Amino acid sequence: MIKVTLKDGSIKEFEAGVSVLDIAKGISEGLARNACCGIVNGEVVDLRHTVNEDVELSICTFDSEEGKSAVRHSISHVLAYAVKRLFPETKLAIGPSIQTGFYYDFDRDVAFTAEDLTKLESEMKKIIKEDPSIERFELPRNEALELMKDEPYKVELINDLPEGEIISFYKMGDFTDLCAGPHLMSIKAVKAIKLIRTAGAYWKGSEKNKMLSRIYGTAFLKKSDLNAHLEALEEAKKRDHNKLGRELKLFTTDENIGQGLPLMMPKGAKIVQLLQRWVEDEEEKRGYVLTKTPLMAKSDLYKISGHWDHYKDGMFVLGDEDKDDEVMALRPMTCPFQYTIYNTEQHSYRDLPIRYAETSTLFRNENSGEMHGLIRVRQFTLADGHLIVTPEQLEEEFKGVLELIDYLMSTLGIAEDITYRFSKWDPNNTEKYINDPEAWNHTQNTMKQILDHLKIDYVEADDEAAFYGPKLDLQCRNVHGKEDTLFTIQIDFALAERFDMSYIDKDGEKKRPYIIHRSSIGCYERTLAMLIEKYSGAFPTWLSPVQAKVLPISDKYNDYAESVAKSLKNKGVRIEADYRAEKIGYKIREARLERVPYILVVGEKEAESNTVSVRSRKNDDEGSIDLVEFEARILTEIANKER
Amino acid sequence: MIKVTLKDGSIKEFEAGVSVLDIAKGISEGLARNACCGIVNGEVVDLRHTVNEDVELSICTFDSEEGKSAVRHSISHVLAYAVKRLFPETKLAIGPSIQTGFYYDFDRDVAFTAEDLTKLESEMKKIIKEDPSIERFELPRNEALELMKDEPYKVELINDLPEGEIISFYKMGDFTDLCAGPHLMSIKAVKAIKLIRTAGAYWKGSEKNKMLSRIYGTAFLKKSDLNAHLEALEEAKKRDHNKLGRELKLFTTDENIGQGLPLMMPKGAKIVQLLQRWVEDEEEKRGYVLTKTPLMAKSDLYKISGHWDHYKDGMFVLGDEDKDDEVMALRPMTCPFQYTIYNTEQHSYRDLPIRYAETSTLFRNENSGEMHGLIRVRQFTLADGHLIVTPEQLEEEFKGVLELIDYLMSTLGIAEDITYRFSKWDPNNTEKYINDPEAWNHTQNTMKQILDHLKIDYVEADDEAAFYGPKLDLQCRNVHGKEDTLFTIQIDFALAERFDMSYIDKDGEKKRPYIIHRSSIGCYERTLAMLIEKYSGAFPTWLSPVQAKVLPISDKYNDYAESVAKSLKNKGVRIEADYRAEKIGYKIREARLERVPYILVVGEKEAESNTVSVRSRKNDDEGSIDLVEFEARILTEIANKER
Repeated sequence: MIKVTLKDGSIKEFEAGVSVLDIAKGISEGLARNACCGIVNGEVVDLRHTVNEDVELSICTFDSEEGKSAVRHSISHVLAYAVKRLFPETKLAIGPSIQTGFYYDFDRDVAFTAEDLTKLESEMKKIIKEDPSIERFELPRNEALELMKDEPYKVELINDLPEGEIISFYKMGDFTDLCAGPHLMSIKAVKAIKLIRTAGAYWKGSEKNKMLSRIYGTAFLKKSDLNAHLEALEEAKKRDHNKLGRELKLFTTDENIGQGLPLMMPKGAKIVQLLQRWVEDEEEKRGYVLTKTPLMAKSDLYKISGHWDHYKDGMFVLGDEDKDDEVMALRPMTCPFQYTIYNTEQHSYRDLPIRYAETSTLFRNENSGEMHGLIRVRQFTLADGHLIVTPEQLEEEFKGVLELIDYLMSTLGIAEDITYRFSKWDPNNTEKYINDPEAWNHTQNTMKQILDHLKIDYVEADDEAAFYGPKLDLQCRNVHGKEDTLFTIQIDFALAERFDMSYIDKDGEKKRPYIIHRSSIGCYERTLAMLIEKYSGAFPTWLSPVQAKVLPISDKYNDYAESVAKSLKNKGVRIEADYRAEKIGYKIREARLERVPYILVVGEKEAESNTVSVRSRKNDDEGSIDLVEFEARILTEIANKER
Repeated sequence: MIKVTLKDGSIKEFEAGVSVLDIAKGISEGLARNACCGIVNGEVVDLRHTVNEDVELSICTFDSEEGKSAVRHSISHVLAYAVKRLFPETKLAIGPSIQTGFYYDFDRDVAFTAEDLTKLESEMKKIIKEDPSIERFELPRNEALELMKDEPYKVELINDLPEGEIISFYKMGDFTDLCAGPHLMSIKAVKAIKLIRTAGAYWKGSEKNKMLSRIYGTAFLKKSDLNAHLEALEEAKKRDHNKLGRELKLFTTDENIGQGLPLMMPKGAKIVQLLQRWVEDEEEKRGYVLTKTPLMAKSDLYKISGHWDHYKDGMFVLGDEDKDDEVMALRPMTCPFQYTIYNTEQHSYRDLPIRYAETSTLFRNENSGEMHGLIRVRQFTLADGHLIVTPEQLEEEFKGVLELIDYLMSTLGIAEDITYRFSKWDPNNTEKYINDPEAWNHTQNTMKQILDHLKIDYVEADDEAAFYGPKLDLQCRNVHGKEDTLFTIQIDFALAERFDMSYIDKDGEKKRPYIIHRSSIGCYERTLAMLIEKYSGAFPTWLSPVQAKVLPISDKYNDYAESVAKSLKNKGVRIEADYRAEKIGYKIREARLERVPYILVVGEKEAESNTVSVRSRKNDDEGSIDLVEFEARILTEIANKER
C-alpha cells in the first residue's frame, strides 16, 4: 500500500501500481469523468501514469492550466492526424499547447490555404467523433529512430535527446507521434475546436533553419466557451498594438530599415517623450542622479563585466577579434557604464546610496523569427538604473524601487495586470550564469527574505535570472495572452567585484557595495504597446498625443475656432483644429476614430457666448461649456494624470 | 609693362617679370620692410614670386592671417633645421603653419623630452641670428626623388603628387626641405619664438600608419606679442573643456570604453537634459513634430540615400557584405529615417511645411587621431530635423530655421562667437558628392540668393558641402582657436528624388518637395564643450547643475539649512546642502570652485530671521536676504534664462 497526499492535505491509501485515473475514481466518479491529467510530486503526468510509492498528487480538470494544456496538446495531435490523412506527404515537426490553444509546425511545399484549414477542421471533428483509442509506449533509441525514419524532424528530435532519456510515443488510432505527453484518455469530451490561422515559423526558432508552416488552433470542452474565446480574440485583434498602433500613426516599420526597428511617428514619439520626462522627473524627486553614457564600448569593457562570456550571442559586435585591433559592441545593458562613473572617485559610506538613472537605449541581436511590433525589438530604450548601496541599505532601497514602480504602474493604470516572478538561476546552465553557487544561494536567499518581508506575492522561475544575480520580474500579458517582462529589479553579487568597486566604511575599511539593477519603466516601446492595448488607443488625457480637437461647424467660425485653439495651446494643451470643408458629423467621427479625449464643436452660439460644445470620450455629448471652465477642467485632469 | 590692381582698387604699372617684393617696394619702403608674402589673383605666393601679366595683388604683413602663416611656416623649417643639426638621425614628415603657430612631425626612435625642446629652441634662435639665405628652386620628379632619397616621408609625398605638378624646394642655409611655400625672404625679423609641447600624431592622420613625434610651436615678430599669446594660452588651458569639464565632474572617459565615447556624469547629463528639453519645447512651439527613429538600419536604406556610396568610410558597419545575408550600419545621419516616416502616406500641399525634429544620436567612425574631448567624438546627439517644403516655402522656412538658431544662440550667449560659412561642393571630388553639376549650380544659386536676401555675412568654402547639397555652417572656435561647426542648415536637392518623396500640389499634380536639413543645436556634446569654455564652467543659473548650495556655519543650524534646501527644492531649484563638519571658509571655497551661482550661508541670525546670507557669483557677498525674496529672485532668473 502507498500513501497519496491530496491537494487538500488529506491522505488516502492505494495499492502500489495504481493509475492516476483510478486514484481520481477513488476520490469521486465525477472528478474522474472531468479529469484531464494529474500532478505527481510537482510533475504533470498522464491519467494513465502509475504510482508506486508515497506521493503528493492533485487531479487537474479543464479549469486548471494543466488540464487545458492536456486537452489542447491532445487536439494538436488530432490536427497532425488530420494533416496526415488529407496531406500525407507532409512532414511533422512539433505541436505543443500554448497559453490560448495549441499549434503544430509542418513541413510542406505549399502553404496551407484557408480552405485547407476548413477541410482540416472537418477532418478533426470526424476523428474526435471516431473516438480513437490513445496509447502511450516507450522505445529504445534505435527502435524509435526506425519507427520515425520517414519523419526527419522527429529523427532530429530523438537524436537531440540526451543519453538515458525516456523516448515515449502516443498512438491515436493509427497515428503515432513522438511525444512526452501528457494526453487525455479519450478526446470525445472535446466538443469545441477551431483552427485560427497559419503562420511561418523557423524550425527550432532559428532563421538559419527551414521555414515551416505553422497552424494555430484552440480547443474547449463546451461550444459556448469557444465562442466567448473567439469573441475575446476578435476584440484583442482590434486592440493589438501592432495593428492599432499603426492605424493611429503611433509607429511604423520599414523593410529597408529592418525587422525589430520600429520608427516612432510624431504621435508615438510624443507619448514616449511624455513618459520619459515624467519618469526622469519622478526619479530626480526620489534622489536619483541622471547619466548619459555611450551606446557602444570596446570588448575590453564587456570582458570585465562578463557580457563577453555570458551574453555575446545577444550582442551586436563591430569588428572581428581575429582581424581588428579594436573590437567594439553595442551595449546590451547600461551597468558597466554607470559603474565606470562610480569608479571615477573613491567613495565613502557617506555617499551611499548612490542612485544612478539613465534613459538608456540598448541593443539585442534578436533572431528575426522572434521580433514582434513594439514588444520584441532589436533596439529599445529603458528607464534603467543602478543603486550602489551598503549591505544595510539593501532592503530599504529595494523597497524604494518597488514603491517607485508601484507609483508608475498605478498612474498608468496597469498595476492590476502585473504578476511578480522571482527569477532564479539554473546551476546546470554554466554557460549562461557566473558559476558561483555559494554566492547564488546567498543572494537568492537574501532576495527571498526581502520579498517575503515585503509580502510580495510571487511565483518562482528557474533559469530566468540575469547572469550576475537573481531578479524580481514584473510580468504583463499582451492581448494575445503572451507574457513579457515590463519591469525588473535585480540584485547583483558579481559585478562590484569584477569592476573593483568599493566604498570606505565607517570603520575605515574598504568594502564592496551591493548593486541593485532596476528598470522603473522597463522598455518604453513595450510599455507603449501595453498602453495601446490596455486603452484601445484611448490614452488618458495627459498621455494623449492630441488632447482636444476644435471643429468649426462651418468656415464662418474658423476665427473663433482659431482663438479657442490658441488659448488652449498657450496653456500647454495639445490641440488641433479641423478647418476642412467637411460636414461636422464626418469631422466628429474622424476625431473619435483618432481617440481624441475632447472634441470641441463651435458654431454661432459658442462664438457668441465664448463657450465650446464638448463631446468627451467619457460622457459623449456634454453640451455647451464656458471656455474658461473647460480649460480649468482639462488642465486639472492633465495635471492630476487622471485616467 | 603689366597692370597690377592693388587692394584699394588703384592700378600701378610695372615691367613684366617684376617680383612681388619689388612691387611692395614700389608702393612704399615701409610696406616692403614689413611684407611677409603676397596674394596674386587669390593665391598666396612668396615675395620672390614674379609677375608676368596683369594681376590683382595684395601685400600681406604679419597683421594678416596669410602673413602670420608665412612667418610661422618659415619658423617650422627653422625647427626642422635645428632638429637635423642636433638629432641628425631624425626623419622629416611635414611641418605646416596652423591657426596659432606651427608644428612639425618627426620620425624618431625616442620621443623628444622637455630638455630636447629647450635645446632645440636655443638652436633655432642661433639659426635665426645666423640669418641664413632662403632660396626656392624646382626639380623634375626623378631629381627630386634623388635629392630626398634619405627622407622616406618626403619620397612618399613626392610620389603622391599628381603628374605635372610643380615640385618645389626651399633651401635655408644648408638645410633643404620639400615645400610648396610661401616663405619669408629672411627670418631675422622674427624676434620671438616658442616651442610649446610635443604630441603623438599618425602619419597622414591614419591610425594604420606609424605614430610620429609632433612638436608644436609658435612665432611672433615681437616679444610682447608672444608673451600676450602665451598668457592667453595659459588662460585657455584653464578653460579647456577637456580639462575643466572633468574637474567639474561633467564628463569622463575610460580606456575600456574607448576613444571618442565620453560618459556624461550626473552634472553634465543634467545640463544636456536641460538643453534638450528646452530645444524640444522651443521646436514644438514653432510647429515642429517629434520623431524617435532607430539608430541602425539595413544597408538597403543607405544604398537608396547614397550614404553607402558617399559616406561608407565614416560609418560603423555591422556584418560583412560578402558573408552575411543582412548587413546593417549605425546611422551617421537622421534624414533617411524621417523621410521614411514622411513616405508612410501620400501628402498634399496642405500638409506642408512638415517640420520633423528629433533628439537624434548619430555615429561617425572617426580616426582615433582626430578624437578630442567632447568636440570630436564617435557618438553624438544632435537636435536634428528636416523640413519638407514646397519650392514657394523654401526661403520663409530657411528664415524660420535661422530665427530659431538665433534665439538659441543669443539665449546661450554665443551669438557673437559665431561666423557663417557657405559650404559648397567641389566638382572634382566626384567620390564625395552626387555628381549632378546642374542641380548643384541651381541649388547653390538658390541658397546664395536666400543668404544675400537675408543679409547673412558669410565666407564661401569649397569642398565643404554635404554630399546631397550646399550648407550654411555656423562656425565657432574653441579656446585653442580651432574652428568647428556648431549649427548647420542644408538644402537637399537629391534625396527627395531618391526616396521618391512627393506631395499633391494645388493643381492635382504630384511634385517633389524641397528638403531643408538643419540642426538647431548641432551636437549637444560640442555645445556643452563650447559653454564650458565660454563660461569657464560658471554656467548661467538656469543651466547650472547645482543652482544653490546652503552651508550651515555649524551643525546647530543643520535643521534650518535643511528647511531652506527643502523649500527651494520644492520650488524646483537644484540645491545641495553641505552638512560636513568643516570650517565655513573651507566650504565656501569649495562651493566657489564648483562654480555654484548662489552660496547660502546660514547661522543663528539667519535661522531667527528666516533669511539666508547670500554669496552670489556676480556680486559676491550680498549680506542677508529674506528667504522668500531670494526664492523669487532665483526663480525669475531661471525662468528668464538670464546670463
